Amino acid sequence: MSIPCTHFISSENSSLENGILMGASSPISPPIPAAVLTQDELKKIAAYKAVEYVESNMVIGLGTGSTAKHAVDRIGELLLQGKLKSIIGIPTSKKTHEQALSLGIPLSDLNSYPVVDLAIDGADEVDPSLNLVKGRGGSLLREKMVEGACKKFIVIVDESKLVDHLGGSGFAIPVEIVPFCWKFTAAGLMKLFDDIGCRAELRTCPEKNGKPFVTDNGNYIVNLYFQHDIGDLKAASDAILRLPGVVEHGMFLDMATTVIVAGELGVTIKNK
Amino acid sequence: MSIPCTHFISSENSSLENGILMGASSPISPPIPAAVLTQDELKKIAAYKAVEYVESNMVIGLGTGSTAKHAVDRIGELLLQGKLKSIIGIPTSKKTHEQALSLGIPLSDLNSYPVVDLAIDGADEVDPSLNLVKGRGGSLLREKMVEGACKKFIVIVDESKLVDHLGGSGFAIPVEIVPFCWKFTAAGLMKLFDDIGCRAELRTCPEKNGKPFVTDNGNYIVNLYFQHDIGDLKAASDAILRLPGVVEHGMFLDMATTVIVAGELGVTIKNK
Repeated sequence: MSIPCTHFISSENSSLENGILMGASSPISPPIPAAVLTQDELKKIAAYKAVEYVESNMVIGLGTGSTAKHAVDRIGELLLQGKLKSIIGIPTSKKTHEQALSLGIPLSDLNSYPVVDLAIDGADEVDPSLNLVKGRGGSLLREKMVEGACKKFIVIVDESKLVDHLGGSGFAIPVEIVPFCWKFTAAGLMKLFDDIGCRAELRTCPEKNGKPFVTDNGNYIVNLYFQHDIGDLKAASDAILRLPGVVEHGMFLDMATTVIVAGELGVTIKNK
Repeated sequence: MSIPCTHFISSENSSLENGILMGASSPISPPIPAAVLTQDELKKIAAYKAVEYVESNMVIGLGTGSTAKHAVDRIGELLLQGKLKSIIGIPTSKKTHEQALSLGIPLSDLNSYPVVDLAIDGADEVDPSLNLVKGRGGSLLREKMVEGACKKFIVIVDESKLVDHLGGSGFAIPVEIVPFCWKFTAAGLMKLFDDIGCRAELRTCPEKNGKPFVTDNGNYIVNLYFQHDIGDLKAASDAILRLPGVVEHGMFLDMATTVIVAGELGVTIKNK
């Protein structure tokens, strides 16, 4: 299903109008040329489209990252306007927890709500089977816990995130590991994928003199870079998880039920 | 290979003589009736036998727990006596680190020594295929990292630890999980094994008013109790590891190369 941007712009019912593409005072502005849209605007389009799936009384998984942030903002806005009621938000990171609190979104956790109606989150890569890479923001474990507990998981991305195969963007697949002997674990991860060429790098914080990045769970992140296609993703997933010292990895396999892709020519909705 | 205790007692070469069964002043004491041996003495017999495999210049994984403690003590003793030289110990817990330090055993870690010649550790259960349950002492993750890096892994137990199948003792199989939403993860673990009956209990510290036990890695332990045989252990292992929130479990499959069992009637050595 492909919807050109001009459709949103001209549609009076679209929840996107006032939020992104039109000034509140000019509801019938002419279409804005596609080339004007920034990557952040594309993220916002996808996020607002996803929030259309949210209904009152739902338990909602709130994602983390620059795209998910727009969805959380929008949910807060609709609550404030009274268009959504009795939402329970389940944040996927401390950062999102803070954001949602500041917006007045009622929050809880998986201990109290083990079944989540719907989660909305971004992704770093999406392959043609809707498998994802997530976690470059560092919240992969909590995201996987919340999004693994969802009836529906809507992924929102701009079109730059579409890849032929996971790892194909040349960016990292992150793995959360315990700090204890992390070099040993990183070496073990590289060794697993010797045959396809794999480099492992500890994620560090340039703003903290290159100290290791620490996750919300007190762990480190090792970024894996692959030279070639990983191939059997489930086998790779199990091999990574079997390595002692690994807590979780950023491949989200068979989890997304819907992916909303915002591109310069429109929004595409892919369902599993 | 079965060696009655009396063999150790009467053998002049046995390293066990002075340490356990004989007073230093009475090297030709008559055999002590088997019934006299306590469980701790049996543990010590197994531990001392295992240390006979240690040679100078080896990198040695040092286990954790009441049985492994005897092995670490013995290694320290042999170093002090000059019978072992240039050992590097890789401790599997903060507790063992402290013990080894106090004994003057030179220590390092897996980052510096990613290949370990030999590890010696206890176990909570040993099945007929030499699969183990470990971690009731709370150190399962570091133990699995060190012992997974070993050329040889010698397990030392008293005969009470032998079981027909893992979980068969009625005691727990521990799972290390992140503290975040631990109830959700514990519920997920139980659900995995619904068909064979599984109860999950958070490990707590009675001496700290029932607060959760915290591992060396800052995580919690959930103890799993099974009503029936788990069956396919590798499938169970993968299912547990796939659950987001799980860090590691206490089933050590295909890892032990030798198991030394001390019983009232002697020592049995089982090789893989």
